[in-house]
Amino acid sequence: MKHRINQLTTWLKEEKTDVAFITSKENIFYLTNFYTDPHERLVGLFVFKDHSPIMVVPSMEVSQVQDAGWEHQIVGYKDHESPWGLIQQLLKDRQLDTISSAAIETDVLTVARMNELLQLFPNAELLPVENQLNTMRVVKDSSEISIIQRAAEMADFGVEVGKNALKEGITEMEVLAKIEYELKKKGIREMSFSTMVLFGENSGAPHGNPGKRKLQKGDFVLFDLGVVLEGYTSDITRTFAFRSISDEKRKLYNTVLQAQLASLEISKPGTRIGDLDQTARDVITEAGYGDRFPHRIGHGMGINVHEFPSMSHLNDGILKEGMVYTIEPGIYDPFLGGVRIEDDVLITKDGHITLTKTPKELTIV
Amino acid sequence: MKHRINQLTTWLKEEKTDVAFITSKENIFYLTNFYTDPHERLVGLFVFKDHSPIMVVPSMEVSQVQDAGWEHQIVGYKDHESPWGLIQQLLKDRQLDTISSAAIETDVLTVARMNELLQLFPNAELLPVENQLNTMRVVKDSSEISIIQRAAEMADFGVEVGKNALKEGITEMEVLAKIEYELKKKGIREMSFSTMVLFGENSGAPHGNPGKRKLQKGDFVLFDLGVVLEGYTSDITRTFAFRSISDEKRKLYNTVLQAQLASLEISKPGTRIGDLDQTARDVITEAGYGDRFPHRIGHGMGINVHEFPSMSHLNDGILKEGMVYTIEPGIYDPFLGGVRIEDDVLITKDGHITLTKTPKELTIV
Repeated sequence: MKHRINQLTTWLKEEKTDVAFITSKENIFYLTNFYTDPHERLVGLFVFKDHSPIMVVPSMEVSQVQDAGWEHQIVGYKDHESPWGLIQQLLKDRQLDTISSAAIETDVLTVARMNELLQLFPNAELLPVENQLNTMRVVKDSSEISIIQRAAEMADFGVEVGKNALKEGITEMEVLAKIEYELKKKGIREMSFSTMVLFGENSGAPHGNPGKRKLQKGDFVLFDLGVVLEGYTSDITRTFAFRSISDEKRKLYNTVLQAQLASLEISKPGTRIGDLDQTARDVITEAGYGDRFPHRIGHGMGINVHEFPSMSHLNDGILKEGMVYTIEPGIYDPFLGGVRIEDDVLITKDGHITLTKTPKELTIV
Repeated sequence: MKHRINQLTTWLKEEKTDVAFITSKENIFYLTNFYTDPHERLVGLFVFKDHSPIMVVPSMEVSQVQDAGWEHQIVGYKDHESPWGLIQQLLKDRQLDTISSAAIETDVLTVARMNELLQLFPNAELLPVENQLNTMRVVKDSSEISIIQRAAEMADFGVEVGKNALKEGITEMEVLAKIEYELKKKGIREMSFSTMVLFGENSGAPHGNPGKRKLQKGDFVLFDLGVVLEGYTSDITRTFAFRSISDEKRKLYNTVLQAQLASLEISKPGTRIGDLDQTARDVITEAGYGDRFPHRIGHGMGINVHEFPSMSHLNDGILKEGMVYTIEPGIYDPFLGGVRIEDDVLITKDGHITLTKTPKELTIV
């Protein structure tokens, strides 16, 4: 991870900014290989323009920081101690208290912590570090891709388990429980978000809640799930028909599929990101469902399951080799139910591959 | 939930503060009964001193806000729209743009959102709303207690499932998978944190990670888990011995148990909160393990699994009827393993009851 800290230091020098202060578990993991979920406790990383970095963690996590390969200073604090007081003393000892500018995660840092930081560095100018970290994180390196690939395989496996569990009368929660059980047996400790298993009209809300709805002939079955594996995420959606499908629902399904394929088709280096959404949206609008696709086409994916970039039709960014993101058009009808089809996509040198592999042709289970 | 909004409005009047701006999903749920996990999307609640409140949500969640019983204005925004622009227009239309002071969640609100808020209300003075919301939330009403009680029963059930799954050679992850499977079948969608099942020396780290460690005779088995039920949480820890236990480990176990019971003993209205930690710590220190109890005795629990108050020995707050919190002393040894015993405690009119009921006497499974 040294090259990532170095990259950030180089940026600080370019920006003539004295320090970056990082508190999100995702960016700390990205920069240090140390992964923790500290809840409300402070875990902070100070990366200085001209000095070696400092990590601040609860004392009971100090050894895990070392195990992750961290070779610089660590400040451990006990539950009854203020980490800020310890940091202040250390900065004074190291003569680092003359900071006049600090880069912060404006989308993550809380107002309370900003105020603590301004106590350490009175009058420091604050500027956002997000653009720099997003730019670094948006292009995945080969080791990241290899982990995401395995996370996507696990997501495929989850859909397979769910599909195999379908039978008349089973509930959404029963199917969901089987999926997560089999994934946990394979060592998955955490899903990347609350797993969705939605039947029939329940699938007609983009953010439905699985419950006791029983599976019936003719239902759509929508799975949306992903896993966290070695700090990286995956995210897949597949929709099946159970036992039979009406013509109306078939048209709905095939429209979503065509929209998804159209968006994948243009997934290659140089494409304007907003065109991914617009292309799928055009397909859906032409088929007469324009007002039934209420969300963006997808999102960047990596350490966070939703990360930079946000892929709306307004995004003027350009696809680059190594980017990983989702393509997930959907059409939602409160009566017929909903269809969403989502893949994790990796931009390659001259095109793309989908990391999720579950077939997408309409399947009647 | 009207009385909670009213309570906040009364406080705003007392503080001569024009508006409270709430973005945490927990406080929004507490005040409105609307529960959502919006990831990076904005869900915001404006509670005004002199006007009816406004909710801001992604457009695809508008109907869920209504379903939750919200009778005031809702601003829905699409993924490609800026919610802040819509809010600005609305405030202008309702002539609410002359705000000079705003109460914010300083521990939750991000710097970026604070900056957006200051665009809406230039020159507004910002002050923290946390103390008020913590004061409201710290005393649970009867309907909250009844939900937490059921969440605690589910946590007991989880430990029971885990205990029954123990057999020589089974791995931590296999036991964990069984626990969560059985809970999901009972309708639990979300655990209140990553479930811990730790065997032997793995239990010797306060924040261990379950993995492929196989269960062996003589191991400690530590379960730490909780569920989210109807928006509320539970949190239990139990430690068992598998097949046999050495005298050294027995002493360790019984010390933790005595510490836990000592702290429970003084759990009643009027007790200084810091004394809960100090009392347990004294027992552990006298037994010679003073440096092996590196965390606070517990934490408030409710909508958040960790919430106000933080129960270190420095806390000068006073226990009151209706408070719910954990008591969870632990001793950790990198070789022998660790023991932690945790109950969810409700302060009653003249004492307490533990909401978690799994027996605590040393049990050899």
